[in-house]
Amino acid sequence: MSSAARPAGAGGPLFDTVLVANRGEIALRVVRTCREMGIRTVVVHSTADRDSAAVRAADESVQIGPGVPRKSYLYPPMIVEAALRTGAQAIHPGYGFLSEDPDFAQICAENGIVFIGPRPEVMARLGDKALARDLMAGAGLPVVPGSARTVSNPTDLYATAKRIGLPVIIKASAGGGGRGMSVVRQWDELLPTFRATRATARAVFNDDRVYLERFWEHARHVEVQVLADGHGNVVHLGERDCSVQRRHQKLVEESPAPGLPPGMRARLTEAAVRGALAAGYTGAGTFEFLVSGHDAAFIEVNCRIQVEHPVTEAVTGIDLVREQIRVAAGLPLSVTEEDARPRGVAIECRVNAEDPSRDFAPCPGELVEFVPPGGPFVRVDTHAYPGWRIPPYYDSLLAKVIVWAPDREAAIDRMRRALGEFRISGPGVRTTTELLMDVLADPVFRAGEHSTSLLRQMAGDATDHRAAG
Amino acid sequence: MSSAARPAGAGGPLFDTVLVANRGEIALRVVRTCREMGIRTVVVHSTADRDSAAVRAADESVQIGPGVPRKSYLYPPMIVEAALRTGAQAIHPGYGFLSEDPDFAQICAENGIVFIGPRPEVMARLGDKALARDLMAGAGLPVVPGSARTVSNPTDLYATAKRIGLPVIIKASAGGGGRGMSVVRQWDELLPTFRATRATARAVFNDDRVYLERFWEHARHVEVQVLADGHGNVVHLGERDCSVQRRHQKLVEESPAPGLPPGMRARLTEAAVRGALAAGYTGAGTFEFLVSGHDAAFIEVNCRIQVEHPVTEAVTGIDLVREQIRVAAGLPLSVTEEDARPRGVAIECRVNAEDPSRDFAPCPGELVEFVPPGGPFVRVDTHAYPGWRIPPYYDSLLAKVIVWAPDREAAIDRMRRALGEFRISGPGVRTTTELLMDVLADPVFRAGEHSTSLLRQMAGDATDHRAAG
Repeated sequence: MSSAARPAGAGGPLFDTVLVANRGEIALRVVRTCREMGIRTVVVHSTADRDSAAVRAADESVQIGPGVPRKSYLYPPMIVEAALRTGAQAIHPGYGFLSEDPDFAQICAENGIVFIGPRPEVMARLGDKALARDLMAGAGLPVVPGSARTVSNPTDLYATAKRIGLPVIIKASAGGGGRGMSVVRQWDELLPTFRATRATARAVFNDDRVYLERFWEHARHVEVQVLADGHGNVVHLGERDCSVQRRHQKLVEESPAPGLPPGMRARLTEAAVRGALAAGYTGAGTFEFLVSGHDAAFIEVNCRIQVEHPVTEAVTGIDLVREQIRVAAGLPLSVTEEDARPRGVAIECRVNAEDPSRDFAPCPGELVEFVPPGGPFVRVDTHAYPGWRIPPYYDSLLAKVIVWAPDREAAIDRMRRALGEFRISGPGVRTTTELLMDVLADPVFRAGEHSTSLLRQMAGDATDHRAAG
Repeated sequence: MSSAARPAGAGGPLFDTVLVANRGEIALRVVRTCREMGIRTVVVHSTADRDSAAVRAADESVQIGPGVPRKSYLYPPMIVEAALRTGAQAIHPGYGFLSEDPDFAQICAENGIVFIGPRPEVMARLGDKALARDLMAGAGLPVVPGSARTVSNPTDLYATAKRIGLPVIIKASAGGGGRGMSVVRQWDELLPTFRATRATARAVFNDDRVYLERFWEHARHVEVQVLADGHGNVVHLGERDCSVQRRHQKLVEESPAPGLPPGMRARLTEAAVRGALAAGYTGAGTFEFLVSGHDAAFIEVNCRIQVEHPVTEAVTGIDLVREQIRVAAGLPLSVTEEDARPRGVAIECRVNAEDPSRDFAPCPGELVEFVPPGGPFVRVDTHAYPGWRIPPYYDSLLAKVIVWAPDREAAIDRMRRALGEFRISGPGVRTTTELLMDVLADPVFRAGEHSTSLLRQMAGDATDHRAAG
């Protein structure tokens, strides 16, 4: 796509203009890196986001539809039209929305626009979670026991569940972000949960295919960040532990992962690089694993930048979005695994606008006071600002607080300090800050011995049962 | 001082409570580290600072007097009384105010309070700039040609100036922060400038002693950060370039210093360590040098944390305030020079509330909008927040923006991005942001070939003449 490229100093061909097809903190995140690279930015937005920080920060913005995502951020024609009209040669999809939609990537290609992500056919294969598990098993990666393909009828459902044994987790093939996943611990819950999960998947992802996996109780969620270019280079940037989850949604992430058994880090990173090579992956991607004792198994690949990518940036010093853009422009990676050797420990906490007294339901409202923490080794990625009104249509992420320190104990102390000074208030606005503070103070977490069961254990089983149902 | 210490986990004896005898961003900076170390904080404040961010962040605050500094932040009895009353075992003096006052350190000691800084007698010797130059010359450090002692009469003045040659710089012995310094380029300016500088020194520092130094045109200001404990350990944390100055006040600082000739870094850092050992230094200190081509000469020691310390923190990963507190508690340094090996490049820009249209006079006022930059590798140290009213009594520093990047070019691009997204507004409020952006875009600065003359060269000589007079 030579028309999309221009010489940029000594750095080789790059884009003049990138369109950001997302919102919230990640849209601002992408604008920031583009600005640093001398690339002009266009941000598309819904009517609900017309005063967003990303819109304010971008060089140009285009309103593409109403607040409801399927008429704006999930609607390719308006986005592609905006790119063509504003002269954008590439689209950065962020995470969520169309970021892992191979059809969207294909439409971009057909319109002469570079999609900043893997090739559509690679995304299609990896995006189907059951297919991806097959591919990875073929590449010699251990995978969690599960259905070989999607499960579409009760007979298949019972047969598969009997073969792999309870508890199982039913997952939407097209799922992500913790939605479309349900744990089944008792046989009489199997069929109703199967039906409910399919209904949710149809409603949320417009795709009701689901598959089954053995559910690992008390496992750790560990993922490996990879970068791959179109010149055959694949590097890993180490791993992240994302075991602190509520309803399969990550709340706290860190790098390196604490308490891995000897040799585990090398096994996971080598498996991820092997998987990326086998898949013909390009760009930034994440290989997710479950780890329990000395056992590890692949669960899925995320074909996009992750919410938690800043912890990897903090320990490696590498700007992941910059590498994504370089790779999409046809350049080789600018980093080696030597450059990526981690230093110290980084932790991220997601501050969500949710009401603890209403089962953590999202709480839209106006932010009267919003003063993020600062000071040494603290990074805040947020699109919120004083006077901003949280729209009701989107996820509840308000800010990501990332800290770095020489060791894990100091990083935890620093995060507690940072969260403690965050000032957020407004009529009806509640946040997850207190829950995060509880996690950071928890002795199991501090010892680095927690699993994905941590929050259930902290709260007592009742809460999670309700959440998982 | 065993009564001032308590066991703190595995870390050894530390303080229960530290009183912060300062204001603004540095008071908040100290509170942050204390919080991370599990140390309770007391912040003293003037009536003008009663709603300050440091006061809000501290565990306890004590009002010690009116806005005017000599009745509050420069008035030891009220500060010591507050420490005794609140059970603080140590006082952190920040920078400016009483931070380099040996009498204050002595009063603290007499009241059984640990002063977080070097011993009073060491401060007294190094704080007298002429004495310090003697000491360092004795330790084998090259010093800038100048008066051996303070100059108190016209005869001495002319004789000294003749010996070292014009241009000379007349400096207050007790000076700091760029005040009490004047350059003399012509003989007919010598006597009037001498008198004016003494008058300023008397008014500002209550000490009219001045000394003379040869003024190096087009030199670089390069300083070395050292840490020393009471157990004989002295380490340096590399150097900072602070050549971008206006009226002898630093505006932009970075580490490592760009464009030093081969061997210069080693010469300066070795000289600083030698000087610290010779002086019996303890705590965090800075040895300042002028560098011109292959020549380097010592100018002074700053016996305190510096405004620009974050750039050193960013490239080394070391929390300097934490080390200050540890050393004051009698602990050994927790870092070695191996730990301190710099990685990448860090730059700091000082965003001051000053009005460019009124010769950069400070402009107090209320901040209506105040949204600091964020995102990857950006740190902001600020005490300002929306709705805060800038008091008229103090320096005009509003925020320090610090960025890190793998190389200098990327760091400059990142700083331009960060400053560009800073939103500050309010009736009558102006800032130095535009001036900083001009510096970052300047080809001489970008090439790393600038000296302390940069701003004069950018603006034309007329402006600085007025400023230096």
